[in-house]
Amino acid sequence: MTVHSEQLVYQGPGGPFEGVAAWDDATDAARPAVLMVPNFLGQKPSDTRIVERLARLGYAGLVADVFGQGKRTTWESPDPAIYMNELNADRPLLLERLKASLAALAALPQADASRMIVIGYCFGGKAALDLARGGGDVLAAVSFHGLYDRPPFETQSPMKAKVLVCHGWDDRLSPPETLVGLGRELTEAKADWQLLAFGDAGHAFTDRAAKKGEGFGYDEAADRRSWAALRRLLRELFGDLNEHADD
Amino acid sequence: MTVHSEQLVYQGPGGPFEGVAAWDDATDAARPAVLMVPNFLGQKPSDTRIVERLARLGYAGLVADVFGQGKRTTWESPDPAIYMNELNADRPLLLERLKASLAALAALPQADASRMIVIGYCFGGKAALDLARGGGDVLAAVSFHGLYDRPPFETQSPMKAKVLVCHGWDDRLSPPETLVGLGRELTEAKADWQLLAFGDAGHAFTDRAAKKGEGFGYDEAADRRSWAALRRLLRELFGDLNEHADD
Repeated sequence: MTVHSEQLVYQGPGGPFEGVAAWDDATDAARPAVLMVPNFLGQKPSDTRIVERLARLGYAGLVADVFGQGKRTTWESPDPAIYMNELNADRPLLLERLKASLAALAALPQADASRMIVIGYCFGGKAALDLARGGGDVLAAVSFHGLYDRPPFETQSPMKAKVLVCHGWDDRLSPPETLVGLGRELTEAKADWQLLAFGDAGHAFTDRAAKKGEGFGYDEAADRRSWAALRRLLRELFGDLNEHADD
Repeated sequence: MTVHSEQLVYQGPGGPFEGVAAWDDATDAARPAVLMVPNFLGQKPSDTRIVERLARLGYAGLVADVFGQGKRTTWESPDPAIYMNELNADRPLLLERLKASLAALAALPQADASRMIVIGYCFGGKAALDLARGGGDVLAAVSFHGLYDRPPFETQSPMKAKVLVCHGWDDRLSPPETLVGLGRELTEAKADWQLLAFGDAGHAFTDRAAKKGEGFGYDEAADRRSWAALRRLLRELFGDLNEHADD
């Protein structure tokens, strides 16, 4: 098994965009594929590690870029949220860019366009939900410590994508009340949805670089359990691929 | 492998009580043990099947009786909730009976008293939470479509038992607001707790005899996913026993 990852430049409204695609070279067959939407900083090495991990499990993966080539920030940037804020103010544009990213994934010879899902972290979790809301051609959407405010466009109903929401109960950006609102929305949309919430975990619980504090930061148990939940959903959808590759 | 189950009469306040114990005869070793608290009707064949299923997986199981020997109802009884209502009105007595049931399980030669958990369904889910709240000697408490109102006694803090709450989002007896209250309680108690909630599922989602209706009834996906969540928690606590016995 050789996991291969490379930059992928693709077009879309406001592009070009630059993501990172990953797959296992051991086979030529088209395989189930995962679009991964990063947090507000945009694509970075820790995101590449996630799609490489999925590649080891037998999937094709693409780290989406919804900001545009070269538009990246770090925690130390003067305004780390600058690109996210632009898209939070224009959710229909975010949706178009998500669909362009999904199309770029679907166009990979390694990806089976009929078997795709979207996952996302933080702002990317919101984006994953938006792609499901907006009728993106995905079988599932998984949000890790996402944000639950509704976009101005209508939520697809019945929602085609299964939804899994992985949530830290203490999330200082997404208090329980917002979760109750999301539950109502997804129920009204007749989605097959699940919520997995973790006590004593906050926003960014998967992010090893985020120091644990009030309602925020890395939590080993929540990270491990939410990853396992993603794998279960993948198994439920696609059966076992390389089941034990990252045990 | 031979799964063995038999009635077990034991003592406690308001007793005698009659539960059903189950284990696999293939070994003499003491093994991790599960106390299972039935719904408001009390011990019945479907409960026995649950502990037998756990026995096949390598655990010792006991269907608890918290009502008293012979005190059982069915949906057709004039007042099916008569025994539950008595205990809802006296939660400290419920707790004493739960502790007596746990002691009966611990006394079985097949059970390892240092490795016990409690699970429960509906009223039994509330009971499982009460045993954790009341400092019962269990490593975990799992509630399936339980009820979340607090008992009059104090919740142990820090709570020793890990808690897993499996919940149908539409549960007509436990609306999302009660769940938010439980989350607050468990967080204040510093519990290691998780919530797994299912869209389009209501109260009694594990109960094949409960016809699906408004906020109520059997749901195959929620039943399967919540059982899988119990098994994951058991594996997390005790490692693999007979891992594939009920796949």
